[in-house]
Amino acid sequence: MSNSETPIHFGIIGCAEIARKVSRAIYLSPNSTLHAIASRSIEKANNFAIKNNLLSNSLKIYGSYSELLDDPLVDAVYMPLPTSLHLHWAICAAEKKKHLLLEKPTALNVEELDKIVDACEKNGVQFMDASMWYHHPRTCKMMEMILDSKLFGHVKAIHSSSSYSPGQEFLENDIRVKPGLDGLGALGDAGWYCIGAILWAMNQTLPTTVTALPGVARNSAGVILTCSASLYWEKEETVATFYCSFVSHETMDLRVYGSNGTCYLYDFIIPFDENSASFNFTSGAKFVDLHIGWNMKPQVVEVASQLPQEALMIQEFASLVKAIKVSTNKPESKWPRTSRLTQLVLDAVNKSIDTGLQPVHM
Amino acid sequence: MSNSETPIHFGIIGCAEIARKVSRAIYLSPNSTLHAIASRSIEKANNFAIKNNLLSNSLKIYGSYSELLDDPLVDAVYMPLPTSLHLHWAICAAEKKKHLLLEKPTALNVEELDKIVDACEKNGVQFMDASMWYHHPRTCKMMEMILDSKLFGHVKAIHSSSSYSPGQEFLENDIRVKPGLDGLGALGDAGWYCIGAILWAMNQTLPTTVTALPGVARNSAGVILTCSASLYWEKEETVATFYCSFVSHETMDLRVYGSNGTCYLYDFIIPFDENSASFNFTSGAKFVDLHIGWNMKPQVVEVASQLPQEALMIQEFASLVKAIKVSTNKPESKWPRTSRLTQLVLDAVNKSIDTGLQPVHM
Repeated sequence: MSNSETPIHFGIIGCAEIARKVSRAIYLSPNSTLHAIASRSIEKANNFAIKNNLLSNSLKIYGSYSELLDDPLVDAVYMPLPTSLHLHWAICAAEKKKHLLLEKPTALNVEELDKIVDACEKNGVQFMDASMWYHHPRTCKMMEMILDSKLFGHVKAIHSSSSYSPGQEFLENDIRVKPGLDGLGALGDAGWYCIGAILWAMNQTLPTTVTALPGVARNSAGVILTCSASLYWEKEETVATFYCSFVSHETMDLRVYGSNGTCYLYDFIIPFDENSASFNFTSGAKFVDLHIGWNMKPQVVEVASQLPQEALMIQEFASLVKAIKVSTNKPESKWPRTSRLTQLVLDAVNKSIDTGLQPVHM
Repeated sequence: MSNSETPIHFGIIGCAEIARKVSRAIYLSPNSTLHAIASRSIEKANNFAIKNNLLSNSLKIYGSYSELLDDPLVDAVYMPLPTSLHLHWAICAAEKKKHLLLEKPTALNVEELDKIVDACEKNGVQFMDASMWYHHPRTCKMMEMILDSKLFGHVKAIHSSSSYSPGQEFLENDIRVKPGLDGLGALGDAGWYCIGAILWAMNQTLPTTVTALPGVARNSAGVILTCSASLYWEKEETVATFYCSFVSHETMDLRVYGSNGTCYLYDFIIPFDENSASFNFTSGAKFVDLHIGWNMKPQVVEVASQLPQEALMIQEFASLVKAIKVSTNKPESKWPRTSRLTQLVLDAVNKSIDTGLQPVHM
């Protein structure tokens, strides 16, 4: 096998539930292979491999994160560790020249993320956060239609939600509600997507102000279970709102209001169905005479995908890594920039919450 | 014809565009008849009647509002006048013992509305604002499902929009953007529906605070063309947001987020189609194993209606009027109460805008 055909060798650091989905994605992606798994104990890593049918002669099982990072055959690591561990382990990975696919939220705050991204830059490795929905062709098709000024016009308003209701056991004991582990709670876990989607719709332009809305709910340890915020772009005169929660029925909405059109979907984070995905688009809607109906119904735009979005993410990441390895390309700066903007807005929401819902100027 | 079979005789005061739709609704409603039309000139009223095929031997055409109010055969008036004229003419109508179906926004502020409602109470006439969507059986079906605590749970969040883009000529010259006529602009015209829908979802409970969001746009005369606001219910821990605009593509969204379910539709003000209406409802949605899809797609609930919602509004109003006339019932207080709560919140949004987006405590 020639060098350009060798798949990118992934190591997974941390056996979180989401690692099951990503290990399958690495298997499905044509330019990658799962080379190693590490957990804090070899038993945990072994059990994860057995449970997910990953065991093979070629799969390395490590009982510590450091051992995996010391494996010279590992090109890239996928890191679904609790957020509070990102700073340390992401920098370790970068210093070991491992390309880094980091679970969201990327860090506890933008200062931490900047240190991680700096380490990646210094060591010439690719950084990407593991938000999968950017990689679905549906996302690209939506953007194509939103950017069509005749069809859609300017973005006037955006609304997004990300919520689920995992139950009482989760609210007491899950990593995502532990102040020492994932201290950003629902804002970090679910709100990350809303903020990312809103920034995506605004072509990664930072808002002028970010203001949290009343109704922040916390668990007994002080971790956010529900919050909402509004974002405002002064020049564009655009307003966005989002709602995220661990105590609300499962939703993942994105609705983009344009001057000439409307684009929306309810499964932007995880498509309803792996084999097909769609969104709704309306342009030029008017009342019919007498205002007794509309001249059209929303158009359903179906977008086929040959691979699940998480496999497309792995494929895209691996191809960037390959280009760095083989063609000595520089890492793609779009991905750390996207993560950084999301983290910046997330920090601003947090700051607004902490200052009694005062607007935070960006 | 016995007294109980005599239809309620309507007079229309003001030949606004929307009066075309309502005159058709009066015709379609089985318990009402259009008895008279009044405009500021007899030519205008005549032209309206001719244009809408309303001319008949029995239709009276009046060249002044007072003449219509002096007609003893008029039981009830529908009043689609500019908002600034409501206070005067609505009170005149009540004092002439005419039941009052008043276009929204009901008044320039709640103080004015209180005077109108007081006049109706003193004179024993029914008051109702002309928000049609409350009267569609779809609205009733949605509420039935939202109130099912197993299916839907508690209301956690609400988002609504009402927007359209009638074009430059409208933005310069329409009654709805003239400070002396409809000074409430898009907030009064389009925002009325959002506020009404949010209060409806909250079972007509007033929010604890109302806060306008950044991004208020006005025309050169200072009338609101776009605005947004957040509403918060402290006890219920519920947050709602809405967006209304005269410069955005046509939307009329209502999305209600529950702890166990989600209910939403995109045509809540005017159904896409007069002959059928639907909404979406999801309950108990979860990710499937590996988080690669959902266990269900939203259910589309179709609700048939024998008459258009505006005819159902007329029928409901006429039946209340009939009960007062024939059975000496008292006027139904639910309708003025609903209007008053909507107007109160609308006033609070306006006050928040005028005080630099400060929260207004209700």
